[in-house]
Amino acid sequence: MNFENWTCPLPLRDYPNIVLGHGGGGKLSAELVEHLFLPAFRNSALANLGDSAVLTLPAGRLAYSTDSFVVRPLFFPGGSIGELAVNGTVNDLAMSGAKPLFLSAGFILEEGFSLAQLGEIVTRMAEAARQARVQIVTGDTKVVERGHGDGVYINTSGIGIVPDGIHIGPAQARPGDVILVSGTIGDHGMAIMSVREGLQFDTEIESDCAPVADLVADLLPIGGIRVLRDPTRGGVASSLNEIAASSAVGMVIDDVSLPVNEQVQSACSLLGLDPLYVANEGKLLAIVAPENADAILERMRTHVVAERACKIGRVTSEHPGMLVSRTRIGATRVVTMQLGEQLPRIC
Amino acid sequence: MNFENWTCPLPLRDYPNIVLGHGGGGKLSAELVEHLFLPAFRNSALANLGDSAVLTLPAGRLAYSTDSFVVRPLFFPGGSIGELAVNGTVNDLAMSGAKPLFLSAGFILEEGFSLAQLGEIVTRMAEAARQARVQIVTGDTKVVERGHGDGVYINTSGIGIVPDGIHIGPAQARPGDVILVSGTIGDHGMAIMSVREGLQFDTEIESDCAPVADLVADLLPIGGIRVLRDPTRGGVASSLNEIAASSAVGMVIDDVSLPVNEQVQSACSLLGLDPLYVANEGKLLAIVAPENADAILERMRTHVVAERACKIGRVTSEHPGMLVSRTRIGATRVVTMQLGEQLPRIC
Repeated sequence: MNFENWTCPLPLRDYPNIVLGHGGGGKLSAELVEHLFLPAFRNSALANLGDSAVLTLPAGRLAYSTDSFVVRPLFFPGGSIGELAVNGTVNDLAMSGAKPLFLSAGFILEEGFSLAQLGEIVTRMAEAARQARVQIVTGDTKVVERGHGDGVYINTSGIGIVPDGIHIGPAQARPGDVILVSGTIGDHGMAIMSVREGLQFDTEIESDCAPVADLVADLLPIGGIRVLRDPTRGGVASSLNEIAASSAVGMVIDDVSLPVNEQVQSACSLLGLDPLYVANEGKLLAIVAPENADAILERMRTHVVAERACKIGRVTSEHPGMLVSRTRIGATRVVTMQLGEQLPRIC
Repeated sequence: MNFENWTCPLPLRDYPNIVLGHGGGGKLSAELVEHLFLPAFRNSALANLGDSAVLTLPAGRLAYSTDSFVVRPLFFPGGSIGELAVNGTVNDLAMSGAKPLFLSAGFILEEGFSLAQLGEIVTRMAEAARQARVQIVTGDTKVVERGHGDGVYINTSGIGIVPDGIHIGPAQARPGDVILVSGTIGDHGMAIMSVREGLQFDTEIESDCAPVADLVADLLPIGGIRVLRDPTRGGVASSLNEIAASSAVGMVIDDVSLPVNEQVQSACSLLGLDPLYVANEGKLLAIVAPENADAILERMRTHVVAERACKIGRVTSEHPGMLVSRTRIGATRVVTMQLGEQLPRIC
């Protein structure tokens, strides 16, 4: 029997949209990997096509994180679900002081989703990965029937190396520490909401979606960084509340010091939202020792992602677990965690 | 101002079902983590509640893998999406010869999903993790609106350590090698299909969902293992086709040697399916050097997950990239990769 010249008798494989078979582990799955994912994410670990990637890492403690992305719409001013999926996990790793190295990517596709759109998303993920200097080394694709998904959901996980001597974590804040934010707040959430609500401004609100790992790597040698957090879902208010609870300290911020873009402020006013609770995707909060605060702030401002960095408050031994804000008229208000969310499916 | 005795004025937080707010990064999200995930997955890395877990690993190469799980129904004879999500990734890591250590878990929940069912799934994940001796150290929860999901989708990723000197991969098969399977094939896929199609048998078909990492760890010291693969989606046929392509070798299997449970065979016949293409979730294929095959087979059979392990074929230099099967009547057929899938949403 001669099998050499045998070929598939059914050349049916030119689909413009995702079909269930793309998730079936057969030829269609293999073609998606070979023609879409491999060329975009190109690296030797992924090209081996094993059940897992095998990696050689430098010695050190490992940071490990995961996030699923269900943002709607998939494309928005300043980014897409693709950049979000890469930068979101890169930034989570950086919040431990880690240098992000490798990502995994899991796609849940809805039957009927456009392959052209998937291609665009994957291309943007690849570009974001290049920019953040991480490799996407392992992945998975599942397909669900029409009406059981929403185009595409993406999960990424990531691993990075934590440098020796770095011990950053949500329980490290101490009374007297200074609270810094790396730039304007609320841009990502309001970019999404503007699209959804059809809001028009003179200039479009753009998501701040960006990697902040290089910024973190540049700040670490200065010393004095106790806590880092990227204020995504729930915004600055929720992040500071969580840190206050973990560290058993109080926090005081000044409303007037909060950097907010004019259009973001207008959109928030229109929709009755508080920018303190709106998601960011390229910012970080840093709780730092008072003696290092100025040096850290100065260094931050040399980075394009943190030009508008500023001090927004301080840590106190009073009212532990609680965040309060001094308002423009000099009053004090408690800034609680929200019960649920004001903006669903923002990331 | 005295904040000490301040409490939330809205004690609204006793929800029997998932609401959008459970994915919002506010109090409801925090409660889900604190009351559901933390107690079930209990470990110090997770309890730190940082943006990423910080882990100390033994030296060595790292295996890294990810899988999303969209199985329907969520509960089936022999398991649930919870055990699948843990064992699926544990087994992918083991296929590199790695000792699995840590998992991440990302949940995409649909608004309205029962918290009791979520609790049951999480409990089963925790039990599966204990059994496979891995820790779930980092996680994420998103919520999508009713009609944009299907109860719950779970992504897990995992990392493990590959022992020194172990180089197992899909390109390592050589002519003359022996093909082993660790037990009966098709059980998982047919357990799912029996539930979906309402098939009745004298004894219920149970999924084989189980971790095979301990089995692998026990086989490695024997030596001679070239390739390992867990034949999930696409079954044994797709896995062997992929290995044949990666290693540029041919493969010949004997239909009569394939171990298939009687009920699985009956269900396959009823539904017009070939067990060679049906998913397994607790089996492995091993391509091994001929001189080690008997010792490996003997050792396999001492494990409860591999009691019915057997030789099913051999690797050949003929027809590279192709899998052929000798049928019961002595004929030879080409066993191709399927185009799409015969069984959607099996894992």
